Amino acid sequence: MGKVVQNITRTDLAIADGLGKCGVATVHEAQGRTGLLQSHMRPIYPGARIGGTAVTVSIAPADNWMLHVAVEQCQEGDILVVAPTSPCDAGYFGELLARSLMYRKVRGLIIEAGVRDVRDLTEIGFPVWSKAVSAQGTVKETIGSVNVPICIAGAMVHPGDVIVADDDGVCVIPRETAAETLEKSIAREEKEARTRARLMQGELGLDIYGMREKLAAKGLEYV
Amino acid sequence: MGKVVQNITRTDLAIADGLGKCGVATVHEAQGRTGLLQSHMRPIYPGARIGGTAVTVSIAPADNWMLHVAVEQCQEGDILVVAPTSPCDAGYFGELLARSLMYRKVRGLIIEAGVRDVRDLTEIGFPVWSKAVSAQGTVKETIGSVNVPICIAGAMVHPGDVIVADDDGVCVIPRETAAETLEKSIAREEKEARTRARLMQGELGLDIYGMREKLAAKGLEYV
Amino acid sequence: MGKVVQNITRTDLAIADGLGKCGVATVHEAQGRTGLLQSHMRPIYPGARIGGTAVTVSIAPADNWMLHVAVEQCQEGDILVVAPTSPCDAGYFGELLARSLMYRKVRGLIIEAGVRDVRDLTEIGFPVWSKAVSAQGTVKETIGSVNVPICIAGAMVHPGDVIVADDDGVCVIPRETAAETLEKSIAREEKEARTRARLMQGELGLDIYGMREKLAAKGLEYV
Amino acid sequence: MGKVVQNITRTDLAIADGLGKCGVATVHEAQGRTGLLQSHMRPIYPGARIGGTAVTVSIAPADNWMLHVAVEQCQEGDILVVAPTSPCDAGYFGELLARSLMYRKVRGLIIEAGVRDVRDLTEIGFPVWSKAVSAQGTVKETIGSVNVPICIAGAMVHPGDVIVADDDGVCVIPRETAAETLEKSIAREEKEARTRARLMQGELGLDIYGMREKLAAKGLEYV
Amino acid sequence: MGKVVQNITRTDLAIADGLGKCGVATVHEAQGRTGLLQSHMRPIYPGARIGGTAVTVSIAPADNWMLHVAVEQCQEGDILVVAPTSPCDAGYFGELLARSLMYRKVRGLIIEAGVRDVRDLTEIGFPVWSKAVSAQGTVKETIGSVNVPICIAGAMVHPGDVIVADDDGVCVIPRETAAETLEKSIAREEKEARTRARLMQGELGLDIYGMREKLAAKGLEYV
Amino acid sequence: MGKVVQNITRTDLAIADGLGKCGVATVHEAQGRTGLLQSHMRPIYPGARIGGTAVTVSIAPADNWMLHVAVEQCQEGDILVVAPTSPCDAGYFGELLARSLMYRKVRGLIIEAGVRDVRDLTEIGFPVWSKAVSAQGTVKETIGSVNVPICIAGAMVHPGDVIVADDDGVCVIPRETAAETLEKSIAREEKEARTRARLMQGELGLDIYGMREKLAAKGLEYV
Repeated sequence: MGKVVQNITRTDLAIADGLGKCGVATVHEAQGRTGLLQSHMRPIYPGARIGGTAVTVSIAPADNWMLHVAVEQCQEGDILVVAPTSPCDAGYFGELLARSLMYRKVRGLIIEAGVRDVRDLTEIGFPVWSKAVSAQGTVKETIGSVNVPICIAGAMVHPGDVIVADDDGVCVIPRETAAETLEKSIAREEKEARTRARLMQGELGLDIYGMREKLAAKGLEYV
Repeated sequence: MGKVVQNITRTDLAIADGLGKCGVATVHEAQGRTGLLQSHMRPIYPGARIGGTAVTVSIAPADNWMLHVAVEQCQEGDILVVAPTSPCDAGYFGELLARSLMYRKVRGLIIEAGVRDVRDLTEIGFPVWSKAVSAQGTVKETIGSVNVPICIAGAMVHPGDVIVADDDGVCVIPRETAAETLEKSIAREEKEARTRARLMQGELGLDIYGMREKLAAKGLEYV
Repeated sequence: MGKVVQNITRTDLAIADGLGKCGVATVHEAQGRTGLLQSHMRPIYPGARIGGTAVTVSIAPADNWMLHVAVEQCQEGDILVVAPTSPCDAGYFGELLARSLMYRKVRGLIIEAGVRDVRDLTEIGFPVWSKAVSAQGTVKETIGSVNVPICIAGAMVHPGDVIVADDDGVCVIPRETAAETLEKSIAREEKEARTRARLMQGELGLDIYGMREKLAAKGLEYV
Repeated sequence: MGKVVQNITRTDLAIADGLGKCGVATVHEAQGRTGLLQSHMRPIYPGARIGGTAVTVSIAPADNWMLHVAVEQCQEGDILVVAPTSPCDAGYFGELLARSLMYRKVRGLIIEAGVRDVRDLTEIGFPVWSKAVSAQGTVKETIGSVNVPICIAGAMVHPGDVIVADDDGVCVIPRETAAETLEKSIAREEKEARTRARLMQGELGLDIYGMREKLAAKGLEYV
Repeated sequence: MGKVVQNITRTDLAIADGLGKCGVATVHEAQGRTGLLQSHMRPIYPGARIGGTAVTVSIAPADNWMLHVAVEQCQEGDILVVAPTSPCDAGYFGELLARSLMYRKVRGLIIEAGVRDVRDLTEIGFPVWSKAVSAQGTVKETIGSVNVPICIAGAMVHPGDVIVADDDGVCVIPRETAAETLEKSIAREEKEARTRARLMQGELGLDIYGMREKLAAKGLEYV
Repeated sequence: MGKVVQNITRTDLAIADGLGKCGVATVHEAQGRTGLLQSHMRPIYPGARIGGTAVTVSIAPADNWMLHVAVEQCQEGDILVVAPTSPCDAGYFGELLARSLMYRKVRGLIIEAGVRDVRDLTEIGFPVWSKAVSAQGTVKETIGSVNVPICIAGAMVHPGDVIVADDDGVCVIPRETAAETLEKSIAREEKEARTRARLMQGELGLDIYGMREKLAAKGLEYV
């Protein structure tokens, strides 16, 4: 509590970019079906797709003071990742803070709580994935921490990890395995491209994946 | 458990088309306020409106194996209707399965669980009504059944029933009464057109529907 | 129960217009972080922003009879504000009722329950903030009241109060303090414009708001 | 905001006692199916049944400061009724505050938020109806109001109103109509006693209430 | 809609009794992990365990009229199973209806909605599994059906099926397979008794079930 | 994924015992209002209060295989702490596994999912804090990890940390600061004992905590 870690090791931005292009579903599968944030984390507008490096923030419920502290720790390619220590869906973040982050070329916000000014955020193109939209104001009384490991929507995020977010939700990729996950993601995409071509010709997944025997062995009956 | 019914009797597609044009609210009222799925079933993108015949799937929680089995049972005009035996909002369905269904001219998916690749599904125009958007991967270990009666979002669906879905949600119309419900739906639309014209001229529902006396009889006071 | 108050004192419409332009987040802050409806009240389509005067309706669960009564009490600039006496998210309101309200130049509907015909409502441009989208039909058996104080989504609304609604949600401004809140809202907007300009130049909130000393006093450490 | 009303008019305590004996279901029906708080308000332990006069508190989210202010306003027979201005289910109340209220012969707490020390509260017999059990600590930074009208769990409560709470939930009875509601409640109990005797002899509600004709008229078929 | 089926075929009561003794978890597993109602169906008091034959009721939201109709269709060993056509958690059932059912030796109620008088129901020992506790009164305006197939909490129940309910929730066992499921349940209990004895001596499930090799084959590492 | 860490460093059991005696609310406050699991984690029966050392388990949704692996890693004084990688409230744990843990003198289970056999668990006195009660069976197909850091109900738990659980919920105390938190907890208890004595004599918190001046400074008015 009450700590700002200033020098963090970020994943190489090229890797984060690559993972962002692959998208949440692919990356999540490529790392063994892990890292997905819970499905209550939804984008405030459709169509955004980002990849970047996490700057984490742990805040007190109904208190957004530490967001101002966190801005200073951000640099190009970062994504701000914010979780309150206890659930309270007030509106911790709005357009003014987004202006400050955009100046520093931050790519978006992931917050397990509320956000406001969503019309303005949509117009200026600052994407947010949040648990709620709420205008409820917050106080500035309790300090928290920046760039410590946090739990957000069921997932653990360390500062410098890669965050990928799109219309499917949000996924975290640990820094240590990000390069490997990118490789696996690209391999998965290539394999899926081949499968897609076959499916679009009318072949069935039952045949492409060789499922008929296994299903019969499990006892599936056709009547 | 573990059964695929191959020859089902479908409602005539012309009836399903007609019901689809009437829309969920009208059809639901026309059949005596029944058949509506619960309101947590939401479209992944706005504007889609479909009518078609149900191919039903009962799956195990967190297991999407039977979706591959179900594809083979689908034909033009069908809508896939999927419910897990126990709630688990993983992402059972994505763009590749949609490609396979589109090849067979399936009109959409109704699933009381999660779906992923929503950006791609939006781009290729494959509509889905679901309980959640989630990228969470599923396993292929447990068999289920295709084309058996299922419960989904509080409603019972038999294979071959008509499904109508639009921005208001999803409604099921039993095959046996579908033709009759279509007639009633059209009659209702015509009556509503007349009422609409009067309301747009400033007449009040209080007068059109003759409510003033009944309200007074119940004791309504104007002060 | 069972009362229609016909002569209510409305806030001056120019004030409601002004508050509507300021938007929910600004107005909510300007009146001391009060008046916000809970965040489950969401618009049925994005982009609408309205301000107007409340005509309130208290209805029985699953019964929409009083909405017809309420229409007659509405005039230009009004917003209909509806709460059931007990939660039941049926579809109490649809396009026909909207036609009737539009004839009377009502600006929108706030309902802590369900609404249907959302595609039509979107097309004709009648904005609604609701708890749910549901086609479930309602009955007309129990009377309620129009223009009595109501509780809706955690907030108290008196007839004639100002309602502001936009993509951030819904806020109520009591009639007695509406003029003062408008002044404070405009002042807040002007101050935010100045702050925005500085943030867009790269200045930090930490410095603009003079937070560094207070944070240090609370014990915040930089490591 | 920021106001403590010191001299409130309470309902006669004998009336509150009488209503408390009747219980929530009876009283709610006797006043025309109104006044019930939403069903997420649950007792922390089973078996408590209280009636008393409301001292109301409006508090900021995650801030319990005003509870200390409210204690001083309480007297014998009161029930503390607390709602945050925006939802946040922290633990605003625990055993120490209960000790203070018990000294003043307060009969219980109704709070649309969290409560803690539930084991101790159970042991000392101080009943609470709350939205959640949570140990999350709160701050003391923002002032609110005591003895102003509040909205709690969908119901409006004025200071001095009667509150009845038991295993079925919580009901508010306006001061102005409390005596009349007590009369109706007792009449209802007497009528139910007669009906109970008949049902326990095997008579059917269908016959006691004379429903058979009405059901047939609605079209109910026996097959 | 609007139908009472009077002559239904019930499962033999001895089988229902046997399944009731096995309990929900055992029976659910014995029939291949099917038949379980969703976990929001909770007992109003702990410790009840029942097995019996289903009398089903489909009711309109916020309307309990058909419960009176259903009572007449019940006989010794039955369990009343009630689902509204659309969710509305009012209090459809209370102590008086329970008296009537107890006279007919009905064993309990399963209702996907609200129930009231829970203190009285506890005292007289009439067990209920419900979605909510709510005193909210209901109307008697719309007819429904008795002894038709219904969907409740995600499960399909036909009249005459076996219902088993205990502290773990509620399970439905189709009449056609009830005898077979009872046999499998008893076999499962016997096998579990042997396993229990070994576990209580300190043997590990890893060894009893022979899991170590399979885990290693999947790649589990000990570090 | 797929790792079992066998030699973990546990907090001294005497410290865990001491913290357990202090209880969740006290310990949570003593460590600066951190460490609390979200309030949906509820005990399956009232009255249990435990302190112990965490053995952590990360499992796949709807798969309880790793619980069998985890049992072998447990020793006296441990508490099993289990979170699925994605939400799925099946019944991962029941009485047989409890027998195995009781043999090893494990003190309880914390699981952000479902549990079954709650009647048996209550009778044998094995306490569980869970998100749901559900009999839904799980599969044994996907491996996970034991004794890695996990996120559970919004909190981060490392193997060997202290877990305290009682009727108020669950709190985690990091191993590194457990001794210090125990000291602070005891100090807090002593201070509260003194405050309790004064409150029970009728002194007000307003005076004991010296709040009157601060409230006046914030603008609180008495009218």
